[in-house]
Amino acid sequence: MSSDAAMSPKITVELLRQLRQVMKSSKYITEPIQAYIIPSGDAHQSEYIAPCDCRREFVCGFNGSAGTAIVTEQHAAMWTDGRYFLQASQQMDNNWTLMKMGLKETPSQEDWLISVLPENSKVGVDPWIIAADQWKAMAKALSGAGHSLVAVQDNLIDAVWEDRPVRPSTQLSALGLKYTGLSWQDKIRQLRGKMAERKISWFVVTALDEIAWLFNLRGSDIEYNPVFFAYAIIGVNSIRLFLDEKRVVDPVVREHLELDSASKPELKVQCLPYESIYTELQAVSSALGPKEKVWISDKASCALTQAIPKIHRSPIPYTPLCLAKAVKNPTEIQGMRMAHIKDAVALCELFAWLEKEIPKGTVTEISAADKAEELRSQQKDFVGLSFPTISSVGPNGAIIHYRPLPETNRTLSLNEVYLIDSGAQYMDGTTDVTRTVHFGTPSDYEKECFTYVLKGHIAVSAAVFPNGTKGHLLDSFARAALWDSGLDYLHGTGHGVGCFLNVHEGPCGISYKTFADEPLEAGMILSDEPGYYEDGSFGIRLENVVLVVPTKPKYNYRNRGSLTFEPLTLVPIQQKMINAELLTQKERDWLNHYHRKCRETIGAELERQGRKEALDWLIQETQPIV
Amino acid sequence: MSSDAAMSPKITVELLRQLRQVMKSSKYITEPIQAYIIPSGDAHQSEYIAPCDCRREFVCGFNGSAGTAIVTEQHAAMWTDGRYFLQASQQMDNNWTLMKMGLKETPSQEDWLISVLPENSKVGVDPWIIAADQWKAMAKALSGAGHSLVAVQDNLIDAVWEDRPVRPSTQLSALGLKYTGLSWQDKIRQLRGKMAERKISWFVVTALDEIAWLFNLRGSDIEYNPVFFAYAIIGVNSIRLFLDEKRVVDPVVREHLELDSASKPELKVQCLPYESIYTELQAVSSALGPKEKVWISDKASCALTQAIPKIHRSPIPYTPLCLAKAVKNPTEIQGMRMAHIKDAVALCELFAWLEKEIPKGTVTEISAADKAEELRSQQKDFVGLSFPTISSVGPNGAIIHYRPLPETNRTLSLNEVYLIDSGAQYMDGTTDVTRTVHFGTPSDYEKECFTYVLKGHIAVSAAVFPNGTKGHLLDSFARAALWDSGLDYLHGTGHGVGCFLNVHEGPCGISYKTFADEPLEAGMILSDEPGYYEDGSFGIRLENVVLVVPTKPKYNYRNRGSLTFEPLTLVPIQQKMINAELLTQKERDWLNHYHRKCRETIGAELERQGRKEALDWLIQETQPIV
Repeated sequence: MSSDAAMSPKITVELLRQLRQVMKSSKYITEPIQAYIIPSGDAHQSEYIAPCDCRREFVCGFNGSAGTAIVTEQHAAMWTDGRYFLQASQQMDNNWTLMKMGLKETPSQEDWLISVLPENSKVGVDPWIIAADQWKAMAKALSGAGHSLVAVQDNLIDAVWEDRPVRPSTQLSALGLKYTGLSWQDKIRQLRGKMAERKISWFVVTALDEIAWLFNLRGSDIEYNPVFFAYAIIGVNSIRLFLDEKRVVDPVVREHLELDSASKPELKVQCLPYESIYTELQAVSSALGPKEKVWISDKASCALTQAIPKIHRSPIPYTPLCLAKAVKNPTEIQGMRMAHIKDAVALCELFAWLEKEIPKGTVTEISAADKAEELRSQQKDFVGLSFPTISSVGPNGAIIHYRPLPETNRTLSLNEVYLIDSGAQYMDGTTDVTRTVHFGTPSDYEKECFTYVLKGHIAVSAAVFPNGTKGHLLDSFARAALWDSGLDYLHGTGHGVGCFLNVHEGPCGISYKTFADEPLEAGMILSDEPGYYEDGSFGIRLENVVLVVPTKPKYNYRNRGSLTFEPLTLVPIQQKMINAELLTQKERDWLNHYHRKCRETIGAELERQGRKEALDWLIQETQPIV
Repeated sequence: MSSDAAMSPKITVELLRQLRQVMKSSKYITEPIQAYIIPSGDAHQSEYIAPCDCRREFVCGFNGSAGTAIVTEQHAAMWTDGRYFLQASQQMDNNWTLMKMGLKETPSQEDWLISVLPENSKVGVDPWIIAADQWKAMAKALSGAGHSLVAVQDNLIDAVWEDRPVRPSTQLSALGLKYTGLSWQDKIRQLRGKMAERKISWFVVTALDEIAWLFNLRGSDIEYNPVFFAYAIIGVNSIRLFLDEKRVVDPVVREHLELDSASKPELKVQCLPYESIYTELQAVSSALGPKEKVWISDKASCALTQAIPKIHRSPIPYTPLCLAKAVKNPTEIQGMRMAHIKDAVALCELFAWLEKEIPKGTVTEISAADKAEELRSQQKDFVGLSFPTISSVGPNGAIIHYRPLPETNRTLSLNEVYLIDSGAQYMDGTTDVTRTVHFGTPSDYEKECFTYVLKGHIAVSAAVFPNGTKGHLLDSFARAALWDSGLDYLHGTGHGVGCFLNVHEGPCGISYKTFADEPLEAGMILSDEPGYYEDGSFGIRLENVVLVVPTKPKYNYRNRGSLTFEPLTLVPIQQKMINAELLTQKERDWLNHYHRKCRETIGAELERQGRKEALDWLIQETQPIV
């Protein structure tokens, strides 16, 4: 079945009519608005969101992870990036204009609004789901053109969303030192040390993964992300945690947070209702001395940010928790290693199984993804997937963040390229790996493109660079081989990866799009995932999770020290897809060394687990290339 | 003579005492200030400045092209970048703290001020020599910490500078179509087209090279830069040029600007005194309709920017003139080619002469630089140098922007590496070239470092990249070979080059430091100049001026088209300095192809000019490498 015909768009005529009515209704707003912005985030600016927060998907049909919809009286437009151009164009009906971000001809949201709005328009947005920095930029651009951005307290999508799901409140689990390497009390102490250095009185924690990391707690409120809805306000002597109070009835949570034991007063956690964050933050702010400052992420919601008077507000691009979380401690690194070994075991089994089953013609994108999940779930400490498995055959592979649905589901065959991008949450770590394989005979062109992608992958993975280098400076290494042949890919090369936390995390990454990333440091963990996508034909991506490690090259300029990457992902790279003539000797050596490591490390674990077929497959796939 | 001992610092005890007195004197300021900022620019934010504007050099002794001094009641500190660490440390006395920008431990000016100032301090600055964007950032940071930034109208350095030179007003020359390819009238028309597109009523031109380019006029007010002190305000129907009125007495200028002939009214140039810009701009601004907007560079002076009420101000990072000037037209490209051929002739002669003379022990850094200037001056349409020649032997080569002085002058020998970075202004173009050579036998380490630099130079020069790529994405290509061995250099890789204009120009460049550079386009001209500097031993840099050209690789992803670079500089790269074993075949091919082109193009011109010795040298230096 062709994917183009299959993924049918959401019909939005009636919905848009209702929304436009609400935009003029005094029941919801004091004055009519001429445009309404629907960002994709929740009140915590999460990338993955709970069903109750999927307002942008609800209004336009597009369900990718990134996108902003704007509805005016006449128009409806949705901005997303290169990963999603194809998917969005298939999921949205003709009422919507797809705005392809990153293309020269695509206007920014601000410029587009200015071009379509009548004079002196009001543009509305829910202040809880727009980040403070985005609010500021948008407000400035609009006011420069005579319009104004207004905070609409009642969410207008919710007003027209009849059967909107309720906010989840799942059971929490506590992680011991065996997994975290550092108690939450020590994390609080370190945080307060950073606050003292900068003379900061309070820190408002709004990102869900930061709260989970800080308190060594995990939940499952959001699929794939082991987080839970909460806020926290950390003071020099107090800790306030805002969450659904039913959750703290659980004795495990009570003991972990020492809610009932005689803790030191400055480590006493005060639990308050989730919804009370705004009034509590206002109360905290109104009691501040004239010089006291409150840290809050500049990506926190506009509503919460404005609860702190400007004079006391100290917005920061990356919070100290975000930075501390990114640099994994030895326990976390060891956990990530173990998680990746288990994950590789499951993938070796999957590929061995696929090789056997595909010729029968019964394996589909969905059944292959299900099999991968089943195999992962057999591994110790498996919790769930870390994101929806991208299991894509042939043309579906060119949809960068494709997720197979019954109506798009293709059968794996000997004739098409198969791309699987998948990962899991284990108690000890998070994985994310992409392999692109062919079960028959790939074409010369497919091999050529694959080899360029491999060259880019190796160029990043083997790069040596000085301490203090920002990840974006490595992005072009991943593209050079593709560029040489006039090819490219429209997404970044790598993202930070959490440790039993979000599969995408800041503040580091490898992308031409950012400049404000923090310098790479030993202990950071990122993905390395260049790709190439031929619309309508195939997609190629090659992704390892890599650890930033110190290295000692021949010299040491100004004693700065050097860094490189160590792959944590240890899954063979299919040699059938490689045109070895296009590789340099250095690249061949890298590949052979990598495959030797896969064979040794994963081979030992397959042996231990008695998974004979996968071991045979691993040995066959890790022969040295010549 | 060792350079460390030789470059003696300026003694600033008395000067700082006087300045601190003036900082409290009601004769100059209404209220005492606790700190005074001395930026290095002039009122046009020029990089190279006239002697009357060298206030930062006057106050601290450091005469590099970039640096900011700040004097408080207790401290004096000067910020500069990696090119100048050594030079600044030698030119400043102990009253000054050198702030090494780019190092992690170095505080920003704002952070440093906040750390040393008493509460509620006032920090002064001359609003004419601080750019509006810098003012804004500094004012915000200071007010966030309870201090304030105040505009001090009388320049306090001028108050203590007894024999300050007067502002120059040199003769202007008019450039015909043969050199410019476009009349100033057409440039005005194109500019007005861009203003109309964006509904802009007025454009204030403040950068000296933009004014020179727009009016096809050149001057020599600032050494090495063929520009003249002027401002312009361009309206939809009017052109106001602000300059020393004595200059427009010259009949050549009168005719060129059609001051006396019956021109179309919208092309009538109104000449006004240089100093009247402020009041004229205020007058223009006060007559604006409520929606009218004025374009001004966000790098224009704070004083001039604030002459336009905020509501009418439309600050832009790069002006349309800056962008238009950067993309050279066919006449300019042809002129740049010719200039580089003449320049290469002079350099071939220089190297042939050096090879003969050095064994005699009579050639010094200064005499070599003088010889280079003499040889260049023999070439057609030579106007002058485009920057002070960096002629440096051995350890002096590690001072990145070194300029030989009698007290630092070393003799060229068979034992040390020689680096010469030089360029000239010709009527048809501007050149900038660096070669690093050894006249005896280089050490293995010198060759190794040189070869890494060469690999970086080739990696940029031969890079293929998609249309729309920003130059900063190419910077790491220049460093990869150095990084692999733990080496690096603390400056950017390339800058835009003007056409018979400033040797450094925006908006494009190749540097890890910028993110806001404009995408590269065919017709832009940049330098490609990686280096390596071993403090106390030697410096290596390899610089060509390169033209951005379209190229057609095998594929054309999304029809974006690809670009690469064509070297305009055609001077042999010394093979004696190369460890050929470290080069790939592709790099050897590049080098041989480059040398063949040098031999053909420059050989023909040397032949035509009858310069036999230089031709012999060229042939010897362009043998293919195997």
